[in-house]
Amino acid sequence: MSQTHPFRALPLSVLAISLASLAHAADLPVKPSVADLVKQSKPSDWRPLDPNNTLYMELPTGRVVIELAPEFAPQNIANIKTMVKEQYFDGLAILRSQDNYVAQWGDPNAETTPKSLGSAKAKVVGEFTVPMANDKHFVRQADLDGYAPQIGHSNGFPVGRDPKAKTTWLAHCYGTVGVGRDNATDSGNGAELYAITGHAPRHLDRNITAVGRVVSGMPLLSVLPRGSENMGFYGAKDTRLPIKSVRLEADVPEAERSHLEVMRSDAPIYKDVVDAARNRGGPWNKFTPHYVELCNAPMPVREHPKE
Amino acid sequence: MSQTHPFRALPLSVLAISLASLAHAADLPVKPSVADLVKQSKPSDWRPLDPNNTLYMELPTGRVVIELAPEFAPQNIANIKTMVKEQYFDGLAILRSQDNYVAQWGDPNAETTPKSLGSAKAKVVGEFTVPMANDKHFVRQADLDGYAPQIGHSNGFPVGRDPKAKTTWLAHCYGTVGVGRDNATDSGNGAELYAITGHAPRHLDRNITAVGRVVSGMPLLSVLPRGSENMGFYGAKDTRLPIKSVRLEADVPEAERSHLEVMRSDAPIYKDVVDAARNRGGPWNKFTPHYVELCNAPMPVREHPKE
Repeated sequence: MSQTHPFRALPLSVLAISLASLAHAADLPVKPSVADLVKQSKPSDWRPLDPNNTLYMELPTGRVVIELAPEFAPQNIANIKTMVKEQYFDGLAILRSQDNYVAQWGDPNAETTPKSLGSAKAKVVGEFTVPMANDKHFVRQADLDGYAPQIGHSNGFPVGRDPKAKTTWLAHCYGTVGVGRDNATDSGNGAELYAITGHAPRHLDRNITAVGRVVSGMPLLSVLPRGSENMGFYGAKDTRLPIKSVRLEADVPEAERSHLEVMRSDAPIYKDVVDAARNRGGPWNKFTPHYVELCNAPMPVREHPKE
Repeated sequence: MSQTHPFRALPLSVLAISLASLAHAADLPVKPSVADLVKQSKPSDWRPLDPNNTLYMELPTGRVVIELAPEFAPQNIANIKTMVKEQYFDGLAILRSQDNYVAQWGDPNAETTPKSLGSAKAKVVGEFTVPMANDKHFVRQADLDGYAPQIGHSNGFPVGRDPKAKTTWLAHCYGTVGVGRDNATDSGNGAELYAITGHAPRHLDRNITAVGRVVSGMPLLSVLPRGSENMGFYGAKDTRLPIKSVRLEADVPEAERSHLEVMRSDAPIYKDVVDAARNRGGPWNKFTPHYVELCNAPMPVREHPKE
């Protein structure tokens, strides 16, 4: 990510390196970038994904890896894991791709000849927020936020919380995965899930159950053709991408696993990572807002380095 | 947008209408939605795009319509219009698609056998901000923002401004179009342009010249396969989408025009539109943050209604 690219213009890179700058405005001091910090990190700054809370959604185009956050939606996640164990999602499809919003998947025949939910529940209580006490890993991000009294990260997930109400919730950023529902708060059950593919729709926070985030494979969802029907649903004119299978990582043979790890958001280095995004330096940047919005704070993921 | 969709779950729609709600949490009062307001609007609430500041980028997959905002980048936009008039972009290509960030287009051979810029300038001063006095149409949005002392809309464009420095600038939201540059502030010239296809990278504000926004055709850019090289640039392994042509709307025969109009952001109705996004009501919403971030404030665009 830090190499100079052959193309003339490197307009948007905050990582671009140039030995001599012709800038008219003063350059900002060179500071370690997020990429620098990732390079400098120690093995203990990372944690592997929990195989019992990681889903592999296998599409014809590749694997989407979703990490679940059971502290934030225990009942919905238990129901999803029941469905995954019973291979409910195998052979279903992506149902919806709405530009600058979501991709959503589930049973295309839910309205006519629905697939049996097996031992999973048809209704699960909405877990739009959970008690703050559920979350042992919260590290506050100091930047102001219009959608939540406090923001921060917990185990690599972006979260909001309300110390007065003593509640916390997963924030809807790019890649956040949640449980589709109808008007009733318990009308979702995890059989229909979505991932955010556009600008963070934070107004969904506290309105719907978020269960985790896509840690790898977002482009497989974000490039899906937008559906031709209302709200990006696929209709007769569209071809739906089938889901080959959804498996719990723990049920996948070791040799076929992705071996990803996420930076520990409660490790000291993560403070520096957020700072690097907040105070961008180097020859390209001429101005820094000294601010980073929750959904622009990096949440580094990498493959576990080979010994 | 306000019909009930045949699928069981309507999880993310703020427009879904249901006659009876089974919600456990109290429903929020029904308020006019953005779609309702668009329906109720008068013809005078809209303005047509200015044919002299509207670009049609014709791709093999369809037309991308870009509205330029000359108050915010007069010199860069003049240069772009020179290139467009001289058909500089015809036959060039999309060079880059980086997930959750940008699509960027220009000359694939810029480093080796660059296409002549014709009468256009090779270097144009960076217009990262302009004097506040340039902008006659600013209407402030009351919501707080971490990236700018003040935010609002001007002629349908999202803008930031700093009343102390007396400057204003186009904000980088989904769809914002800008001028790629290298480290030097005057190293851009408009021959390489980008459109934001991901979560708003507002740290680019005041660091690069934004020239306008995509008002139609974003999905043609947002679904482009992500490039396999650094920063999403396309390389030997990828196929670049060619640009058939870029034309000024004024130079396109009337019968081939798109006839789009944008809601006037200085019409009273626009205040209601932002309010509708800020205070979402109706049976689906259980919680409202009474807040809407700049890049989540709707900027309605429609085809001019046929008489």
